Amino acid sequence: MAVRVAIVGLGKIAHDQHIPAIAASDEFELVAAASLSGTIDGIPVFETVDALLGAGVAIDAIAMCQPPQARFEAAAKAIRAGKHVLLEKPPGATLAEVEALTRLAEASDTTLFAAWHSRYAPGVAPARAWLAERHIHRVDIVWKEDVRRWHPGQQWIWEPGGFGVFDPGINALSIATHVLPRHFHLRDGRLEIPSNRAAPIAAQLEMVGIDGAPVHAVFDWRQQGPQTWDITAETDAGTLCLGAGGARLAIDGTGHDVGAEREYPEIYARFARLIREARSDVDRTPLRLVADAFMRCRRIGAAPFED
Amino acid sequence: MAVRVAIVGLGKIAHDQHIPAIAASDEFELVAAASLSGTIDGIPVFETVDALLGAGVAIDAIAMCQPPQARFEAAAKAIRAGKHVLLEKPPGATLAEVEALTRLAEASDTTLFAAWHSRYAPGVAPARAWLAERHIHRVDIVWKEDVRRWHPGQQWIWEPGGFGVFDPGINALSIATHVLPRHFHLRDGRLEIPSNRAAPIAAQLEMVGIDGAPVHAVFDWRQQGPQTWDITAETDAGTLCLGAGGARLAIDGTGHDVGAEREYPEIYARFARLIREARSDVDRTPLRLVADAFMRCRRIGAAPFED
Repeated sequence: MAVRVAIVGLGKIAHDQHIPAIAASDEFELVAAASLSGTIDGIPVFETVDALLGAGVAIDAIAMCQPPQARFEAAAKAIRAGKHVLLEKPPGATLAEVEALTRLAEASDTTLFAAWHSRYAPGVAPARAWLAERHIHRVDIVWKEDVRRWHPGQQWIWEPGGFGVFDPGINALSIATHVLPRHFHLRDGRLEIPSNRAAPIAAQLEMVGIDGAPVHAVFDWRQQGPQTWDITAETDAGTLCLGAGGARLAIDGTGHDVGAEREYPEIYARFARLIREARSDVDRTPLRLVADAFMRCRRIGAAPFED
Repeated sequence: MAVRVAIVGLGKIAHDQHIPAIAASDEFELVAAASLSGTIDGIPVFETVDALLGAGVAIDAIAMCQPPQARFEAAAKAIRAGKHVLLEKPPGATLAEVEALTRLAEASDTTLFAAWHSRYAPGVAPARAWLAERHIHRVDIVWKEDVRRWHPGQQWIWEPGGFGVFDPGINALSIATHVLPRHFHLRDGRLEIPSNRAAPIAAQLEMVGIDGAPVHAVFDWRQQGPQTWDITAETDAGTLCLGAGGARLAIDGTGHDVGAEREYPEIYARFARLIREARSDVDRTPLRLVADAFMRCRRIGAAPFED
């Protein structure tokens, strides 16, 4: 029997990815949603999580797709009501609240899944396998995109807990922490903050592996024209380039066929498996690197940003 | 045989606390130090950790008392050289670097001890025991001190990774995470940043327990006159006040004799025990709350600060 799933937060990511992925899955059936303003044809939409949980609709699981600042309250209520919960990335606005949800899920015997979608890009698994056997000399992460194109009018993303350019940047960090075989940590860095905003529009992070290899990251939301989401690793056996956010893989300039992009179908397949196996999967490592960046980096002013 | 210990960083905390505590201990013998400018009578002082480790002085353990921004490199070298390491609080400038040190210590079979000194204040253990059996309604943390008095001329403390008012504030958080029986997390807050500094001079944190109890904290470095380091917990069985940074305990206004302050002698007694038992003790919880605050809080401007 399919898992009866509801979506909380009918914004861009729910419509672009979650609803199509659920519709294409035999393992899930979309039965309801909660949103202050969004709608879906043929599905009851409640204004709040409380209304959704209290409406008598039979629900097994809830996908949390709202902005991270509002995620904890809704997820805690869903877990306490015995629902399995999928958290869009980032899984929360703080590390300690994600830890709290993890504890609640353990106490409720429900599945909690922090879904780092970029880890399911098709080049990521082969990149991880290839890098596991190599000695890495240096890593460069370049994540440059146009915020106006990808986050049109999203004001929450510029607020505290909205992460600014770390909203896409954490995708890069979720891949890097997954494919690099050695632990790495932040040594120094800088954040560029528009004078009229609370969150960074660009960041440079000087990180280092436990073996001393530099891991350098540049995130920038002011990129017009071609968009760049690349991770390059120089190793003792050649240079690996994981491009297009994990969708393309090349080694020493030779492209490898990694198949088509299907991040969200993979996420829902994994969510179904976790539910069947009564397990949770909540990796806070990418969020911890972001928290370190906010704590450790120097902030410098940038020009005001208007949508 | 006494543990032969060296100190790295001969600043205020080394002279005020570590050197007297080691001198008073039968379990430790101070044999060397590293510092760019400090001296100790009768003890060789090297300029760098490399010189200290390469000098042929027999050393079993090193206490890291330098500013947190410089702690990782020195601690990693010491651990790799097989030394047991005590980290003054905060144990590092980022969460991931403390995790890296933990992994290095595990691989080297050395003891790593993150010494949260305020947890050894004499009122803390009885407060923890009393609170363990109570239902807590509300917690208020007030940590107000005069930065000019406690950190005279310390420029590193205003730099990224120096933590600003969270340098004393993390003492409050180290006590609160130790004495409160339930996990709590940050919901919202604000940091006040002097216009000529990189780190906050004051902070307000709205936290909440996993059971819904509010935990409110105010940190302020602009306090003149009486200094305040108080944690008050309202419970179903009365109000507990842990005052003077943990040195005083009162329940419903009645003071309890908790004995004299001996934080650093207790820390070194614990370090000796950990070394004997070949164990480490590295709790990152207080630092994680600080990272959450830097990531989640709104920043507001404050008047410039001059020493």
